[in-house]
Amino acid sequence: MISKNQIKLIKSLQQKKYRKLYQLFFAEGVKVIQELLNSNYELVEIFTINELFLNVEKSKINFISETELKSISSLVTPNECLAVFIIPETELKDYSNTLQIALDDIRDPGNMGTIIRLADWFGVQNIICSEATVDVYNPKVIQATMGSIARVHVVYCDLKAHLSEVSVPIYGTLLQGSAIYSKKLIQPSIIVLGNESNGISKNIQQLITHKITIPRFGSLQQTESLNVATAAAIVLSEFCRNN
Amino acid sequence: MISKNQIKLIKSLQQKKYRKLYQLFFAEGVKVIQELLNSNYELVEIFTINELFLNVEKSKINFISETELKSISSLVTPNECLAVFIIPETELKDYSNTLQIALDDIRDPGNMGTIIRLADWFGVQNIICSEATVDVYNPKVIQATMGSIARVHVVYCDLKAHLSEVSVPIYGTLLQGSAIYSKKLIQPSIIVLGNESNGISKNIQQLITHKITIPRFGSLQQTESLNVATAAAIVLSEFCRNN
Repeated sequence: MISKNQIKLIKSLQQKKYRKLYQLFFAEGVKVIQELLNSNYELVEIFTINELFLNVEKSKINFISETELKSISSLVTPNECLAVFIIPETELKDYSNTLQIALDDIRDPGNMGTIIRLADWFGVQNIICSEATVDVYNPKVIQATMGSIARVHVVYCDLKAHLSEVSVPIYGTLLQGSAIYSKKLIQPSIIVLGNESNGISKNIQQLITHKITIPRFGSLQQTESLNVATAAAIVLSEFCRNN
Repeated sequence: MISKNQIKLIKSLQQKKYRKLYQLFFAEGVKVIQELLNSNYELVEIFTINELFLNVEKSKINFISETELKSISSLVTPNECLAVFIIPETELKDYSNTLQIALDDIRDPGNMGTIIRLADWFGVQNIICSEATVDVYNPKVIQATMGSIARVHVVYCDLKAHLSEVSVPIYGTLLQGSAIYSKKLIQPSIIVLGNESNGISKNIQQLITHKITIPRFGSLQQTESLNVATAAAIVLSEFCRNN
């Protein structure tokens, strides 16, 4: 059973302002929820159409109908279960002895989620986001992380101010950079990924200490750019392959 | 101006059965349309809210209102213009002296479009798709290619039968494969990319001559998989970096 007020609350969590107000977010599907349950995230309540989570306190499980699930889901095809978690407080932590990622105004939730999944794969523990980067607790971001959100620390800050203070190399993919395959890529360092339409902003470009570029191989040479998540995949792979 | 029948026709092209029936598809946005105009694709008609395409026959340009554009667009935020093109006839062509990609039941239009954009970037001219792979003329695929569809040949066939007959190496990413960074990657060859949920199908796995895997670097080692488009980015980058 689910009450009208619960439906209203959960639906409101699709919007950032209500997530901020209530300090809550939701995740959907067994895989993502299970990964969050195995992490430090604190569960509020699970809504499920099947008996799925045997290790969860019974008082936190609500069995609901498919129709009820549909009324709270953000998915076109709801995925058996939805769980509400508390948004943890985050702060800038010192990851300066590791490879880090900085997101400069990434706007697409799918891209952000995919980058978090990639970070997890390549052992990147910390992602620093500009204030204008899409909210990590957006349901589409959570979905695209496929659960990796449970293992990667994501923090928002004044990116320019933060990068001005670090002492590790700051890498950024820019058209006029050195071919990534020919450079020794130094770790610990920070890889900056830029906005989907405008790339890395002028403010942040000034702080890039190592400009790199992914060479283009097509003979027609008309492709203008790579999607930011696929560029991130290539850059992370290059950083890790030799280490 | 746009007639009710035109609106009905264009909206129907969001569905594969009508694209097949009329042998038409549409693209949206100046960039994608311009790239198609610069290619062999044959334009039927452009619907635009602004004077944008100066080199196009005037009889093929329809100026419409923003409201009219909204009525035919597949986008939440329509993008100035929409153009209808003829779907060209395609056939299996001999690209056996090049690096090729085979898609084994890729279902997500965004992934397919991103893979076409990657292929274009890395100079892959030919993509061979299983019959169950999402239709390349799906508006979401066209959008995600960002115009690269104009330069990459995409063909559908019985993938198993086709791969059974080729004589070049067939690569596939499988969990039990050799680490991609430690192998010499041979070209010409074919890289098989598998379905988002199930990976490469059993049928096709038997035909893989070179099993490769992308090593995972996260110390927690819990990440289950990479998104297929990001995996494609890493594999293509590895194939091209040493050639």
